[in-house]
Amino acid sequence: MIEKFQQTIQEEIEKLSAELAVPPAELYEPIRYMLSLGGKRIRPLLTLMACDLFGGNINDSVSSALALELFHNFTLVHDDIMDNAPLRRNKPTVHSKWNNSIAILSGDVMMVKAYQLLSKGKMCDAILPIFNEMAVKVCEGQQWDLNYEQLYKISIPQYFKMIELKTAVLIAACMKIGALLGGAKTEDANHLYEFGKNTGIAFQLQDDLLDIYGEEEKFGKQKGGDIIANKKTFLLIKASDIASNNPYLKEELDQWMSVKTLNDKDSLEKVKAVTKIYDFVNIQKITKEEINSYHLKAVSALEKVSASPDKKKHLVEFTSSLLQRQS
Amino acid sequence: MIEKFQQTIQEEIEKLSAELAVPPAELYEPIRYMLSLGGKRIRPLLTLMACDLFGGNINDSVSSALALELFHNFTLVHDDIMDNAPLRRNKPTVHSKWNNSIAILSGDVMMVKAYQLLSKGKMCDAILPIFNEMAVKVCEGQQWDLNYEQLYKISIPQYFKMIELKTAVLIAACMKIGALLGGAKTEDANHLYEFGKNTGIAFQLQDDLLDIYGEEEKFGKQKGGDIIANKKTFLLIKASDIASNNPYLKEELDQWMSVKTLNDKDSLEKVKAVTKIYDFVNIQKITKEEINSYHLKAVSALEKVSASPDKKKHLVEFTSSLLQRQS
Repeated sequence: MIEKFQQTIQEEIEKLSAELAVPPAELYEPIRYMLSLGGKRIRPLLTLMACDLFGGNINDSVSSALALELFHNFTLVHDDIMDNAPLRRNKPTVHSKWNNSIAILSGDVMMVKAYQLLSKGKMCDAILPIFNEMAVKVCEGQQWDLNYEQLYKISIPQYFKMIELKTAVLIAACMKIGALLGGAKTEDANHLYEFGKNTGIAFQLQDDLLDIYGEEEKFGKQKGGDIIANKKTFLLIKASDIASNNPYLKEELDQWMSVKTLNDKDSLEKVKAVTKIYDFVNIQKITKEEINSYHLKAVSALEKVSASPDKKKHLVEFTSSLLQRQS
Repeated sequence: MIEKFQQTIQEEIEKLSAELAVPPAELYEPIRYMLSLGGKRIRPLLTLMACDLFGGNINDSVSSALALELFHNFTLVHDDIMDNAPLRRNKPTVHSKWNNSIAILSGDVMMVKAYQLLSKGKMCDAILPIFNEMAVKVCEGQQWDLNYEQLYKISIPQYFKMIELKTAVLIAACMKIGALLGGAKTEDANHLYEFGKNTGIAFQLQDDLLDIYGEEEKFGKQKGGDIIANKKTFLLIKASDIASNNPYLKEELDQWMSVKTLNDKDSLEKVKAVTKIYDFVNIQKITKEEINSYHLKAVSALEKVSASPDKKKHLVEFTSSLLQRQS
């Protein structure tokens, strides 16, 4: 079933990409480039699965699914400019392959194209407000992320609020929109929103973990990039919390966080040193427990949904498998 | 009548601005700042006038009018980053007052907020596709503009296509959307689109003219900024066309266009020299004739519309007055 959905999405993405082979190339090539980089297409896949869960025809949800994937890619392009990221999925980011202006503008048009796909889809009246609310929250999440980069320390609740906005509400919106297009009642669509939100938080925790404990080559990003950028990940905040009871560890972590590395050798040293602290406080185990706890919250929201138990099981298996990934 | 419409728009903008006094301030303050800079609010005003032209209730078009103004402001924020512009309406641009990341992100959320306003309005199903098509074209126009900055010379038709996309289709969409919300038939709404498109082209020609021949203080931009940036304005392209028959003039213009000025003194010298060439070829008169010709095209499209002759007259008077402006 999942393979069939993935194939549908791939075909639709290729169709869209072919339609975008038009001038001005500087505007549309970056979109085709982003779409060609692949990725797991988790968001459109979850949209289709949510639609199917209620016995809906996935053809009714495919253009909204694509809109959500396009919106996701738009956020990646703009975030990469703000984060000064050189690589995305092991390939140059749009702003490094072209330039900032092109990355800003092709990102903008990606967002508009997402709205175009939505407006072509069914039930646009019902779905547009959900999409808009999600999009506002994603921007807010990115802004909190930028703000927190300037702070020495943020709290665990601040972290969870930030990733809920930046990452989880998009997954939640995919589930809710897919559900509504599949014919779900409002109540069930809202349960699926909760399923998606908690799953999204678990995904982000997993992402934070993979920055250090992932298989670099498959992950397609610089290993320890979050440490080098002093990014406020769950690992850092939790380790910092634990270290507050251990003066030696605290000083060690504080010192490394104050280091701005300017070359690869220094960066590598910083990553090694911080990873050692992470290992010492057993951060991998703690993070995995946290991931599991959000996964269980998601599953319990899904249990409340009136839908085929078999299809619900598939959905849980699929998200579980994503949370086991090493890259 | 116009004063009443302007008041309605101002009140709605203030209401919106008050709603945006929420965290994260870094995301929403730039929007409030842009809205506070004023401007002539031509786009929402034309939307309301188009609605009123067909006897519609302007309350039915005010949220779409605001969406169009917000979209316009979003393009200004992002364009200013790409153009490296320090000033907008005599005040620091968002990216210079804050930074590029904040300008990118607050611009993004402005676009989403525009869609939120649209989705609140009437007839969203009919209006969303018009809005989307316009938004795509505006991005394309900006991309052509960026591309043309790299070229030594573009043709007059390339220029007109570029400003049609970048500037005129937004005015056209304002008119068409306002008309539909006012109850216009498709045919009349399309005539108003033509009216808006030709008026928008005339506005841009006027803008090009005011870069040199405007009253600087009122205009709120650096005088001759287009010349310093080697911007492909109607004045430059037309002067360059004329100069192609005059070897001395051609060499003089070519030489100045190849100068990249690095300080204020050199910039001033370049502006003076190019203005002298413009004066010599009588560019002001030629441009004014071109403006008049597009204005007449607009008026002739409006004549085809079945609506109150009095209200049509008001609309023509209003756009004429804008084309007489000196700043």
